[in-house]
Amino acid sequence: MNQNRSGDLDFIALNESYRQVRSQSEKLCQPLITEDFVVQSMPDVSPPKWHLAHVSWFFEVFVLEPYSPGYRSFDPQFNYLFNSYYQGIGTPFPRARRGLLTRPSVADVYRYRAYVDEHMEALIAQLQRHREYLNIQALITLGLNHEQQHQELLLTDIKHIFAQNPLLPEYCHMNHDQNSPHPTAALHWTKISGGKVDIGHEGDGFCFDNESPRHEVLLNDFALTDRLVTNAEYLQFIEDGGYQNPLLWLSDGWATRQREGWESPLYWRKKDDQWQFYTLGGLKPLVPHEPVCHVSYYEADAFAAWAGKRLPTESEWEYAAGQQTMVTGNFMDSARFHPQPANSGERLTQLFGDVWEWTLSPYIPYPGYRTPQGAIGEYNGKFMCNQIVLRGGSCATPAGHIRNTYRNFFYPHNRWQFMGFRLASES
Amino acid sequence: MNQNRSGDLDFIALNESYRQVRSQSEKLCQPLITEDFVVQSMPDVSPPKWHLAHVSWFFEVFVLEPYSPGYRSFDPQFNYLFNSYYQGIGTPFPRARRGLLTRPSVADVYRYRAYVDEHMEALIAQLQRHREYLNIQALITLGLNHEQQHQELLLTDIKHIFAQNPLLPEYCHMNHDQNSPHPTAALHWTKISGGKVDIGHEGDGFCFDNESPRHEVLLNDFALTDRLVTNAEYLQFIEDGGYQNPLLWLSDGWATRQREGWESPLYWRKKDDQWQFYTLGGLKPLVPHEPVCHVSYYEADAFAAWAGKRLPTESEWEYAAGQQTMVTGNFMDSARFHPQPANSGERLTQLFGDVWEWTLSPYIPYPGYRTPQGAIGEYNGKFMCNQIVLRGGSCATPAGHIRNTYRNFFYPHNRWQFMGFRLASES
Amino acid sequence: MNQNRSGDLDFIALNESYRQVRSQSEKLCQPLITEDFVVQSMPDVSPPKWHLAHVSWFFEVFVLEPYSPGYRSFDPQFNYLFNSYYQGIGTPFPRARRGLLTRPSVADVYRYRAYVDEHMEALIAQLQRHREYLNIQALITLGLNHEQQHQELLLTDIKHIFAQNPLLPEYCHMNHDQNSPHPTAALHWTKISGGKVDIGHEGDGFCFDNESPRHEVLLNDFALTDRLVTNAEYLQFIEDGGYQNPLLWLSDGWATRQREGWESPLYWRKKDDQWQFYTLGGLKPLVPHEPVCHVSYYEADAFAAWAGKRLPTESEWEYAAGQQTMVTGNFMDSARFHPQPANSGERLTQLFGDVWEWTLSPYIPYPGYRTPQGAIGEYNGKFMCNQIVLRGGSCATPAGHIRNTYRNFFYPHNRWQFMGFRLASES
Amino acid sequence: MNQNRSGDLDFIALNESYRQVRSQSEKLCQPLITEDFVVQSMPDVSPPKWHLAHVSWFFEVFVLEPYSPGYRSFDPQFNYLFNSYYQGIGTPFPRARRGLLTRPSVADVYRYRAYVDEHMEALIAQLQRHREYLNIQALITLGLNHEQQHQELLLTDIKHIFAQNPLLPEYCHMNHDQNSPHPTAALHWTKISGGKVDIGHEGDGFCFDNESPRHEVLLNDFALTDRLVTNAEYLQFIEDGGYQNPLLWLSDGWATRQREGWESPLYWRKKDDQWQFYTLGGLKPLVPHEPVCHVSYYEADAFAAWAGKRLPTESEWEYAAGQQTMVTGNFMDSARFHPQPANSGERLTQLFGDVWEWTLSPYIPYPGYRTPQGAIGEYNGKFMCNQIVLRGGSCATPAGHIRNTYRNFFYPHNRWQFMGFRLASES
Repeated sequence: MNQNRSGDLDFIALNESYRQVRSQSEKLCQPLITEDFVVQSMPDVSPPKWHLAHVSWFFEVFVLEPYSPGYRSFDPQFNYLFNSYYQGIGTPFPRARRGLLTRPSVADVYRYRAYVDEHMEALIAQLQRHREYLNIQALITLGLNHEQQHQELLLTDIKHIFAQNPLLPEYCHMNHDQNSPHPTAALHWTKISGGKVDIGHEGDGFCFDNESPRHEVLLNDFALTDRLVTNAEYLQFIEDGGYQNPLLWLSDGWATRQREGWESPLYWRKKDDQWQFYTLGGLKPLVPHEPVCHVSYYEADAFAAWAGKRLPTESEWEYAAGQQTMVTGNFMDSARFHPQPANSGERLTQLFGDVWEWTLSPYIPYPGYRTPQGAIGEYNGKFMCNQIVLRGGSCATPAGHIRNTYRNFFYPHNRWQFMGFRLASES
Repeated sequence: MNQNRSGDLDFIALNESYRQVRSQSEKLCQPLITEDFVVQSMPDVSPPKWHLAHVSWFFEVFVLEPYSPGYRSFDPQFNYLFNSYYQGIGTPFPRARRGLLTRPSVADVYRYRAYVDEHMEALIAQLQRHREYLNIQALITLGLNHEQQHQELLLTDIKHIFAQNPLLPEYCHMNHDQNSPHPTAALHWTKISGGKVDIGHEGDGFCFDNESPRHEVLLNDFALTDRLVTNAEYLQFIEDGGYQNPLLWLSDGWATRQREGWESPLYWRKKDDQWQFYTLGGLKPLVPHEPVCHVSYYEADAFAAWAGKRLPTESEWEYAAGQQTMVTGNFMDSARFHPQPANSGERLTQLFGDVWEWTLSPYIPYPGYRTPQGAIGEYNGKFMCNQIVLRGGSCATPAGHIRNTYRNFFYPHNRWQFMGFRLASES
Repeated sequence: MNQNRSGDLDFIALNESYRQVRSQSEKLCQPLITEDFVVQSMPDVSPPKWHLAHVSWFFEVFVLEPYSPGYRSFDPQFNYLFNSYYQGIGTPFPRARRGLLTRPSVADVYRYRAYVDEHMEALIAQLQRHREYLNIQALITLGLNHEQQHQELLLTDIKHIFAQNPLLPEYCHMNHDQNSPHPTAALHWTKISGGKVDIGHEGDGFCFDNESPRHEVLLNDFALTDRLVTNAEYLQFIEDGGYQNPLLWLSDGWATRQREGWESPLYWRKKDDQWQFYTLGGLKPLVPHEPVCHVSYYEADAFAAWAGKRLPTESEWEYAAGQQTMVTGNFMDSARFHPQPANSGERLTQLFGDVWEWTLSPYIPYPGYRTPQGAIGEYNGKFMCNQIVLRGGSCATPAGHIRNTYRNFFYPHNRWQFMGFRLASES
Repeated sequence: MNQNRSGDLDFIALNESYRQVRSQSEKLCQPLITEDFVVQSMPDVSPPKWHLAHVSWFFEVFVLEPYSPGYRSFDPQFNYLFNSYYQGIGTPFPRARRGLLTRPSVADVYRYRAYVDEHMEALIAQLQRHREYLNIQALITLGLNHEQQHQELLLTDIKHIFAQNPLLPEYCHMNHDQNSPHPTAALHWTKISGGKVDIGHEGDGFCFDNESPRHEVLLNDFALTDRLVTNAEYLQFIEDGGYQNPLLWLSDGWATRQREGWESPLYWRKKDDQWQFYTLGGLKPLVPHEPVCHVSYYEADAFAAWAGKRLPTESEWEYAAGQQTMVTGNFMDSARFHPQPANSGERLTQLFGDVWEWTLSPYIPYPGYRTPQGAIGEYNGKFMCNQIVLRGGSCATPAGHIRNTYRNFFYPHNRWQFMGFRLASES
C-alpha cells in the first residue's frame, strides 16, 4: 500500500481491508458447530478455533504490543497457547497438542478477536499520526496476508477433520455435474522460449520476503500443458499400475507409498467398483474432467515419469504465468471450495486458482535473500529446507491474495491441501 | 432386585433407579462447556460425549433391540461409532480415534439419550407382562451398573483432559484446608487371622460376573494398615530417592518410570520448591494428610518395598472388608471428587471410597468362572490378562455401586484413575 | 548339595558339575561360525557370545570377586558389558544394543571363560577350608543353574537368529519322519481329585527362590489331557478360522494378533498350500502328530476357548506332575532340539521336556516370599509382574535342571521359546 | 577410457584398474576381525561383508549376466540378499535387516568376490572381440566407481559401528599432534566474480549421470573462505550457546536437534571439561586446528547463521574449484582416515579431500537430465528429492575418484560421513 497525496485515503482502505479479511475468517466458520472448532485430526492440522485465535495473536504480538501504547493483552496466557512457531517470542505450546485444549472456549476466542479488532481499528484510525506508520502499515498488511493464508488452512483442515468421521459431514452444499456432458478439454502444449529472464517480486505491492530479491535466471526453451492434469488422466495412471510400479517413483516417494498404503489420492475411495471422493460438499462420485487434487509431490512426480514428462520448475511456471495478463480463476471467493474443469480451447488456463501446482523446485532462498531481523524473520526463512514450491493458488485461496511470484511450500508427502499439477517438457 | 409379592413395586423401583442413574450422568456434565465434550487426551481416555452416547448404546443394543418389538435405532451409524469393544456386535470404531469425531454434536447425543430413555421407560412400564422379564430386568440392572462405571470414567477423563491445558480449568469449587490443623492419623496395623475363607459374591443382589463363583481360599495370618498411605508418607519415599533407586522397583516398573520420566504421582508438580497438585478444583498446594492418589501399581509396589512391606492380596482385602458392617465412605455422591484424610483412631478405615486400592493380585478368573454366552460375555472375561485388581471404590464411584466383592482392574502402569493403596504384612 | 561325612566328596562332585555345565555351553556352540555369535535378532534375543560371556560374568561378580581373595577381573569393562539386569551391580549396558558389539571377539570371550574357569576351579579345590563354604557352594550351584538356563536361551536365540535369514541355515541334522505311520496318540483326560495340597519346593535340593515357600492351596477336582496339543489339532483351530475370530481371544491377545499379523505359530509358513516350519534342522514339512510349539499364551488361551476348555493353573499342573514318579522326557541332552510325538496309551505323558507348558497362572510371589538381600535378589523377584508361568521344561532344557516345582515365566506375547500347552477342565 | 590406436592397451589398463579397485576394498578390511563384518549399527549403515558382496553383485548383475555367455551366478540367493535398491532387478532384501544375516560367512563372501573376479578378468581379456565392448567397458567403469563409493562407506560404517562400542576399538594407528605448535591458519576470503558460467561435466572422462548435462547458470559475485571451518571455530559456536538458540536453526533442524539431543558434532564427548572425539584411531583429545567434521547440514547452516554468513551453492563451489588446477588433497590413499589442518597462507585450500563440504543446494536434476533406461537408471535419479549436495570428497574418498563436477548427496540430518563445510558470502 502506498501513501497517496492526501495521506488519508490509504488508511481508510487499510481499515476496509482489515475489516474485510477479519470478517471473512469468521464467515468461513459459520457452517461449523462448536464441536468442530476443537479437534486436531493430525499434527499438520490445527483446530479451527486455534486458527481464529492465532491470527489475532499475530496482530497482538507484532502490532499492538510494540506500537499501541498502553495496550494490555487480552489474556497473557494466550501468548503461549497461540504462538505457532516463533521461538523469538518464546517456546510455543507444542503443535501436536493443539487439539487437547477445550478452553479457551470458542466464545472466548471470538471475544479475543473482537478485543483485538477494537484496538487494531483504533490504531489504524490514528495511524497517520504515528511516527512509524510505514512500518506499522507494512506489519498490518503482513498480518492480513497471514490471516488469508490461515483462511485457506481453515478450509483444508476442516476438510481433513470431517473426512475422519464416518458420518462424512458436509461443510457446504455442492452441485456436482458428474453426468453433465462437459467434455474433458483436450490436452495441448504451449511452447515458451527460454533465455535470461527475471524472477521474483519487485515494485510497491505487497509480497512475502521469500519472493525477493528479483533476480535473473537462465531458462531453456520449454513447454507446459495448457491445463491441469484431470481425474480421468490420473485414473489411467492408477489403472496402468502406477501405484504398484516402484520404477516410476522417487525412492522416498515409494517408501512413503508403501508405509502409508497409498493406492489413490487422498479422499478417494472405491465402492462397488466406482470411485468416489470426499469433498467439502460430502461424498460424491468422482468427476473425470475435474483437475486431480490432493496428491503429493511424490504422486505428481510418479505420474510425470509414467507420462514421460516432468513437472515445471518454479521459474518456468512464473515466467509462463507472467505472460498472462490477469490473475483470475476459481478462488475461495467463488465459494465453490472445489477445483473446476478447464474450459476447452483456452491457452494456458487454470494457472491461478483451482489447485496449487507442484513444481520441480525445492523451496530455497533466492540469491541474495536475507532473513529479516527479529521474530518476524521466522515467518518464512527457517522453512527453506526439505519442502517443495507450489504455485498459483487454489479454490481455497482468497482472490486478492495471490500473485504470479507467490511461493507456497509444503513437504513432498503432504496431500491435505488442494494440490494438483500440470506437466512440462523440454522445448 | 427381587420380585415382591405384587410384582409391581419392583418395576417402579427399577424405573426409579433408571431415572436416577441416567440423570446423574447428565448432572456430572453440567459444569462442562460444549468444547469439553469432544476431546480425547490419550487413548485410555474417551471424550465425555462418547461416554454419554456409549452408555445409551448399551441399552439400545442389549435391551431395546432384542426385547422391544419394533424398536428402530436412533441412528444406525451409532452402532459403529459408540460400540466400545464388543466384537460380537461388529468391529468397533477405533478407540484411539474417538477424539476425532466432532459430529454427532453434543446436542445430538442428548437427543439420543432422550430417545433411548423414552423407549426404555416404556419397556420398563410394560415389563411385568414380558415373558422374559427376569432376563430383561437383569440386563437393565447391568446397563445401569455399566453407566455408573462410566460416570467414574467421565470424572477421571475430564480431569485428565483439563490437566493437559495450561489454563488448568476448574471442574468444581474445592476448599482445601491445607493449613488446617488436621493431623495425619497415626498409622496402626490391624491383625487378621487367616484360615479357609470364602471369597466372591453370592446371594440375590447384583454383581458382575467376575465376582463369582464364590469359592474358598486359604489365607495365612496377615495385617493391614488401618488407613491409606498419605501424601506426607509418599513424600518421604520421594525425598529418600525412591524414584532414583531401581532396586525398589519391579523390572517393568523401572522401565516405565525411565521411559515416562516419572518423578512423582500424576498431577503433581513442584514449583519454587513447593509441591502442588492438580485437582478437579484446580491447582492446589499438596495436602500432606490426604491419601496419596494417582499412583500406578509400580509406584505402590516400590513404596511398599521401600517400607519393607507389601500390598494386600485381593482375598485379604475382601476378607478384611467383609468384616466391616457398612459400605460407607467418601463417594461421588459427596461431590467432593477428591480423597479425604482419614479420621484418627478409627480401625480399618477408608476401605471404601476415597481411592481405589491397588492389590497384589493379577486380574484372573475365579476357579470355575465361565465367560457368559454372547456379546455380553465380552464385558469382563476377555480382560483377564495383564491387569491388576483394585478394590473399594473411590471418591468418583457412585455410592450404591460398590461392594466388598467388587473387582476393578487396570494395567499396572495406569495412573489416571483415583488410585492409591494401603500396606499389608505377614501376621 | 549336602555335605557328606568326609566333607571331600561333595567338592569333587561340585567341581565335576562345574566342568560338565561349563563345557556343555561350549558344546552347544560348536555348530556356530564366528559370525553367528554376534547378532541380536530382536531385543528379547541375545547374541550367543553375549550368553557365553554373561554366565562367566555371573561367577566373576557373585563368587570370585567377593570370595576369592586377590582376584583380578579379566577385564574391568566386562562388568558393564555383560551385566544383564543387576542394577545393584551398576547400570547395565542397554539390552537392545547387545548386537552392536563386535568386540570383544569370540576368541576373547572364550579366553574370558577359561580365565574364570581356572579361578573357579582353584576356588572349588580350596572350598572346604573356606569359612563361608556353604554360602559359596550355594552361589556356585545357582551359577550353574543360571548357566543351564542360558543354554536353553542359546538354542532358542540361535533358532530365532537363523530364522531371519532367507538362507535358513541348519544348526543340526534332523530326521523328520513326516511320512511315518506314527499315529497321533488319542486324546484322553486324567481326572484328579482336589483338596488342600502343598505346592512349592522343600527339602535339601537346589531350587530357585521363586519356588518357595512351600504352602497350601485349595484345588477343586480337575482333569488334564494326557498329552500335549498337537500340530494336527492346532491346524483344526486355524482352519476353523481361529485366527479370524476375536471372540475366542483375550482382548490384549487380539490386539497383538492384529498388530503382528499372526496367522499361525511362529516359524510356520504356508507354501503351495502345504504347511512347513523352520526347525533347528532347517525348513521341514509340518509333522501333524508332534506337539504344537512356538505359540504365545494368547494363542494357547484362544485355542482352549475354541475347544471349550481352559489351561491348567500352575498348582494343578504341579500337583498332577508331583504324582509322576520320574522327571524323564525329551530334553536338551537328547540333542534332538525338537519336541517329539507322544506315545499312545501312556497316562499323563509329556509333562516334562518337549515344550514348556503355558499355565493359566500369572507369575506372582508365593505367600510369604521375600526377595533375597543384595543384587542376587534381582534374579527372580523383580519380574513378578506381567508374566505367565510355564511348567515342565522343553527339548532345550538340560535334563538335570528341571523339577516339578520349577517356575519358568515369559510375557504372554512371547513365542520364541519352545512353548506349547495341554488343556484342563473342571472335574 | 578411450580406445587407443592399437585397441589393446586400454583393456590392459581396464584390467589394471579392475584389480586395483577390487584389491583396495579388501585391503581396507584387513584390520577387521570376522565379528566386525556382520553388524549394522543403524539403518544407514551396512555391515562390511554386505558392502564386499554388494559391489560384486553389481558386476554380476550388470556385466556378467547380460554379457558373459553361459555365466552361472555364484549363488542365486545372493541376487536377493545383496541387491541394494534396484527394484528393476527385484524387491531387495530389507535394508534395515542387513545386520541380521550371519550367513553367508565372511569367507563365503570372499569366495564370491574371487569367483566374480575370475569371470570379470576373463571377460575383460576377451573384451576387444565383443560386439558391445564400448557398452561393457562403460559398465565396468561404472562398477569400479561404484565400488570406490562403497570403499568410503566401508570406512564411515566401520567408524560408526566401532563408536557404539564402549571399548572404542581402533581401526588404525593415528598420531595426533594436539599439542603441536601448528597454528590455525588465518581465515581469509577469496572473492570470485560471477556471470554466466558452465556447470556440469563434459568430455570423455567418466562421470556419473547426475553430473550432466553441462549447462549455463548465472552467478552473482561471491566470496568463499579459503579453508574449512575448524574445530576451534565450531567450539566458539557451541560455547556461545549455538545449540540452545532456536533462532539460528532451520525449523526442521531445530526439531531434529531437540529430538536427538544434539549438543555437539557426532563422535564428540566432553569428559572432565575436556572435549574428546572418537576417530578411526580411537578416542583422542579434540584438535582445535583440524576441520570440524561429522556435522549435519542443519548444524552447518546454523553455524553460518551465527557467523552472519551462508553456505556456498554447488554452482559457486564448482566454479571456484574449477579454477583450481589440480585435484589434490588428503584422500583415502594417504591412509590417514582423518581430516588434516589447512596450511597457512594458501589460497582456496582444502577444496578436495579432508571432508565433504555441505552446500546450500538441494540435490535435483540438472536442466535436461533424463534418467537412464533400465535398472541402472535407479543409480542416481530416484534420490533427487530431500537430499543436499556435498562437494569435494573427503579423507575417505579414493584419490582418483573425485572431480570438481562430482555431486555427492545426503539427507540434511546425516552426520556419519566425513562432512564439514566452508562459508560463503555475497561479493
